[in-house]
Amino acid sequence: MTEPIRVGVLGAQGKVGQAICAAVEAAADLELVAAVDKGDPLSRFVESGTQVVVDFTHPDVVMGNLQFLVENGIHAVVGTTGFDEARLDQVRGWLAGRPEVGVLIAPNFAIGAVLSMRFAEQAARFFESVEVIELHHPNKADAPSGTAYRTAGIIAEAREKAGAGPIPDATTTELEGARGAEVGGVRVHSVRLAGLVAHQEVLFGTQGETLTIRHDSIDRSSFAPGVLLGVRQIGLRPGLTVGLDPFLDL
Amino acid sequence: MTEPIRVGVLGAQGKVGQAICAAVEAAADLELVAAVDKGDPLSRFVESGTQVVVDFTHPDVVMGNLQFLVENGIHAVVGTTGFDEARLDQVRGWLAGRPEVGVLIAPNFAIGAVLSMRFAEQAARFFESVEVIELHHPNKADAPSGTAYRTAGIIAEAREKAGAGPIPDATTTELEGARGAEVGGVRVHSVRLAGLVAHQEVLFGTQGETLTIRHDSIDRSSFAPGVLLGVRQIGLRPGLTVGLDPFLDL
Amino acid sequence: MTEPIRVGVLGAQGKVGQAICAAVEAAADLELVAAVDKGDPLSRFVESGTQVVVDFTHPDVVMGNLQFLVENGIHAVVGTTGFDEARLDQVRGWLAGRPEVGVLIAPNFAIGAVLSMRFAEQAARFFESVEVIELHHPNKADAPSGTAYRTAGIIAEAREKAGAGPIPDATTTELEGARGAEVGGVRVHSVRLAGLVAHQEVLFGTQGETLTIRHDSIDRSSFAPGVLLGVRQIGLRPGLTVGLDPFLDL
Amino acid sequence: MTEPIRVGVLGAQGKVGQAICAAVEAAADLELVAAVDKGDPLSRFVESGTQVVVDFTHPDVVMGNLQFLVENGIHAVVGTTGFDEARLDQVRGWLAGRPEVGVLIAPNFAIGAVLSMRFAEQAARFFESVEVIELHHPNKADAPSGTAYRTAGIIAEAREKAGAGPIPDATTTELEGARGAEVGGVRVHSVRLAGLVAHQEVLFGTQGETLTIRHDSIDRSSFAPGVLLGVRQIGLRPGLTVGLDPFLDL
Repeated sequence: MTEPIRVGVLGAQGKVGQAICAAVEAAADLELVAAVDKGDPLSRFVESGTQVVVDFTHPDVVMGNLQFLVENGIHAVVGTTGFDEARLDQVRGWLAGRPEVGVLIAPNFAIGAVLSMRFAEQAARFFESVEVIELHHPNKADAPSGTAYRTAGIIAEAREKAGAGPIPDATTTELEGARGAEVGGVRVHSVRLAGLVAHQEVLFGTQGETLTIRHDSIDRSSFAPGVLLGVRQIGLRPGLTVGLDPFLDL
Repeated sequence: MTEPIRVGVLGAQGKVGQAICAAVEAAADLELVAAVDKGDPLSRFVESGTQVVVDFTHPDVVMGNLQFLVENGIHAVVGTTGFDEARLDQVRGWLAGRPEVGVLIAPNFAIGAVLSMRFAEQAARFFESVEVIELHHPNKADAPSGTAYRTAGIIAEAREKAGAGPIPDATTTELEGARGAEVGGVRVHSVRLAGLVAHQEVLFGTQGETLTIRHDSIDRSSFAPGVLLGVRQIGLRPGLTVGLDPFLDL
Repeated sequence: MTEPIRVGVLGAQGKVGQAICAAVEAAADLELVAAVDKGDPLSRFVESGTQVVVDFTHPDVVMGNLQFLVENGIHAVVGTTGFDEARLDQVRGWLAGRPEVGVLIAPNFAIGAVLSMRFAEQAARFFESVEVIELHHPNKADAPSGTAYRTAGIIAEAREKAGAGPIPDATTTELEGARGAEVGGVRVHSVRLAGLVAHQEVLFGTQGETLTIRHDSIDRSSFAPGVLLGVRQIGLRPGLTVGLDPFLDL
Repeated sequence: MTEPIRVGVLGAQGKVGQAICAAVEAAADLELVAAVDKGDPLSRFVESGTQVVVDFTHPDVVMGNLQFLVENGIHAVVGTTGFDEARLDQVRGWLAGRPEVGVLIAPNFAIGAVLSMRFAEQAARFFESVEVIELHHPNKADAPSGTAYRTAGIIAEAREKAGAGPIPDATTTELEGARGAEVGGVRVHSVRLAGLVAHQEVLFGTQGETLTIRHDSIDRSSFAPGVLLGVRQIGLRPGLTVGLDPFLDL
C-alpha cells in the first residue's frame, strides 16, 4: 500500500479550514499532520514533514505563506481570493527557483461548478440560443454572481470563436429588466430567494430541443471534494496552475 | 345513457378551430353538429340544434356572434381575445334578457396555467420570497408574457392582503437588468430560447425550503381539455363567467 | 400593541428544540418563557404563565406531556411522532374536559410540503397522467418516502372520487423496476443521491401541457415557519387538529 | 464565396425526410439537388451531381443505398436504424475500395442528446452518486428508453475505469420498483406522462452539491441541426464514423 500524503492546513480554525481538516482526516489516503492558524509559526509544516498545504486564509497573508511554502519545497492548494496577474507573476517567479513544486490557485473548488462552466463552453457553439439563470439566497450583495458572469463570458467567447451570430430575440416591448442583464450578448438572470443557497442553470436551445446544465450547491462543504482532488494531484503537476479545470483531465 | 351535448364551432377552419373540432369529435359525450367559419350563416347553429358554441374567431366579429348566440338561447365558450369591461357589460346586458344562457369568456384555457395561477395565489402569503420566471420561444414580442404579468400581480395582491412586508433582497451592486422586471414588488424574469414553447415557473422560498410551481405548454393543443371542460359545464352555469377558474371548483 | 404570546418549548435541548427556541426568540410577537427538557418539571410551564407549548420530544413521553398541558389549560403544538387513532382518541378525551384548549398534532410542519400535497390533491382530477418523484440523501432507509407515499395516496383518492380512469401507459417491455413503485395506481420513483436533502416533484400531464409541483427542503429548519404559524393560531382553534392543513385556510 | 454543398435526400417523402429537405433548403450553404423516395432510381443522385446524401429510409433498403452511394463516390449521412457489427463491417468493406468517401451512421442526431451523453461520461468519475431519470409520452413501449440505457452504461463504464466504488444507498425497506431499474449499478427511472415528448435528466451528487444535465426534445425536428452538421463535415471525414460524437470535436 502507498503511504498517505502528509497534508497541512493553513487557516485551520476558520469555517472552511475546519471542514478541510475533517475531510482530510476522513480520507484514508491522506494524513493531517499540521493544522496551522494565525499566530502559529509556518515552520510547523517543515517540522512535520508536510507535503501539501491547503491555504484558505486571507489576501493579506497568502503571499507570505506561498513564498514560505515554495521555498521549502511544499506544494500548495490555495482557495484564498484576491489573486491578480501581478500576484500570479510573483508566484511564478518563486516557482522558477523550485521547478519541482506545484501550486494550484482556484477561485472555485466545487467540482460541479467547474464542470458546469466547462460543459457550457463545449456546448456553446452548437445552439442558437443560450441564457444563464443564477439563483441565490437573498443576502447576496451582487447580481449577477461572479460565477454567472464568468460563465456567460466563457460562452460568449466560445460563440464568437465559432462564428455564431447574435442570439435570436424578437422582443419589442419590454418591461425594464425583464430580459435580464447582458454579458457579451448573453442574457443573465439573477433570482434571490429565501431557502436557496447557490444554484445556476445554463439553458441552451435550438430547433426542437434544449439542453440544461444545472449546478446546485447547498452547503459550504461542497468545496471539499475539489480540494482533496487538488491535494492528491498537485504532486504530479509542478508549476502554477490557475483554476481546478486542468486537474479534471476532461 | 345521457344524450351527447350538441356542439358547434365558430372559426372552425382556423388552427385552433380545427383542433377543437377534432377534440369534440374524439369525445364520446360530445357531438359536433356545426362547424362554421367566415361566410357561413350563424343560422346553421339554430338549424342543427346546437347547444353550445365554441368561439375562437376575431375581436372584430365575436360580439356579433355572441349577440346572436345569446338571443337564440345557445351557450358560448369563448377563447377570442379583446374583451374589455365595456364589452363584458354589453354581454351581461344581452344575458339579462336570457338568464338561462351561459357564456364563458377566458383568456387562457390551458388548465395547467389556470391552476398555476391559483396555486400561486394560495401559496403567496406563506413565503418570505417569490419570483416568477417565464420562458418562451424567441419570436415572442413582449416581455414579460401576459400570463407572467398577471401571475405576479395576483401574488402581489395576495401578499398585500396578508400584510406581508417587502421581499428580502440585499442586492447593492447590480448589472442593469440582472434582477429582472418588477411587477407590484415581485421580480419577473423573461427567458427567450429556441427550442422552447411556453413555460413558467413560480418560485416561493422561506427558511430552509422552496416550493416551485412550473407549467410547461409544448403544443397549441393544450387549450383543448380546458375548452371541453367549459363545454361540458356551461349548461350548469348560466350568466357570464370570466376566466376558467370558477369552473374548476377548487 | 398586542402582548406577545408566551411560548414554552418541550425537548428544548434537542436539535429541533434548539431551532424552535431560536425561532421563537427571533419573532417579535412571541416570547420564550420556558425551555424544558428531560428532567425538568412540567410545572415550569404553569409557573411561567406559558400559553402555548411546542412539543418535539419522544413517543414515550409525549402523552404524559399532553395530559399535563391540557389539564392546565395550555395549548400544544406537537411535532412528536407516533400518534395512532387510539392515542388521538385519548387526547380528544382530555380535551372534552377542557373545550377551550387547542392541540395541533402534525407529522410535517414544512409549509411547502403541506401545500404541495394540497395542490396535488386539487390538480389530480384535471390531468390524465400523474407521477411522483422523490429525491433524498443516500442515508435514507425507506423508499419511497412517507411523504411521497401519502402524496400518491391522496392523488389516487382524488382521481377515484372524480371517476378518472387508469393512467395511460403503453409499456410492454420493462427492465424490472424502471417504471417505479405503484401506490394506488400512481407511479412513485425514489432517487437517492449524495448532495441532496429532501425533495419531491409531482408531475401532472395532459394533452400538450404539464404541471409540476416541486418542494425542496435543504435544511431541518424548514419546519420553523410552520411551527410558528401553529403557535400563533392555536389559541383560535380549540379542540384537536391533526395536520397543519386546516391552519392554512386554503 | 464558397459553392453550396449539393445535397440529396433518400426517403424524402417520409416525415423525417420532408423535415430534412426543408432544413437543407433553408440553409444558405446547402443546395437540395435530389429528393428521392421509394420507386425513384438512385441514379438521380449521380445525374444531379449530389455530393452528400442523407438517408432516413428503412433497414431493408439502406444497405443497397449505401453500396450504390459509396461506389459512386457520394458521401452519406445515415439516420436509418438496424446497423449491427456485421452491417458496419460490410460498409467498411465498400469504403476500403473508395477511401475518399465518408459515411456517418448515427442512432441519434439530436445534438443535445449526444452532448448529454458525453458530459455524463466526463462527469461520472467526479461524483459519488448518479441516477438517470428519463421522461416520455405514455405511448412508449419500452422502459427505460434506449438513450437512458446507453447513458447509464456509459456512466457505469466511466466509473469502473476510474475505480469508483459502488454508489451509496442505505435503502433497507423498498416498495417494489421504487428505486428504479439497475443498469451496470446505475439506477434508471422511467416516467410516462401525457404532455411530454422525450426528456432525460442525469443527476450527479457529491458532498453538498449536485450537477444535473437535462435534455428536452419536444419536436421530431430536433434531429435537423445534427444532420446538417453531418452534411457539412462529412466531406472532411473519409471512412466510416459511427455516432455523431466525433463530429462535435469536443
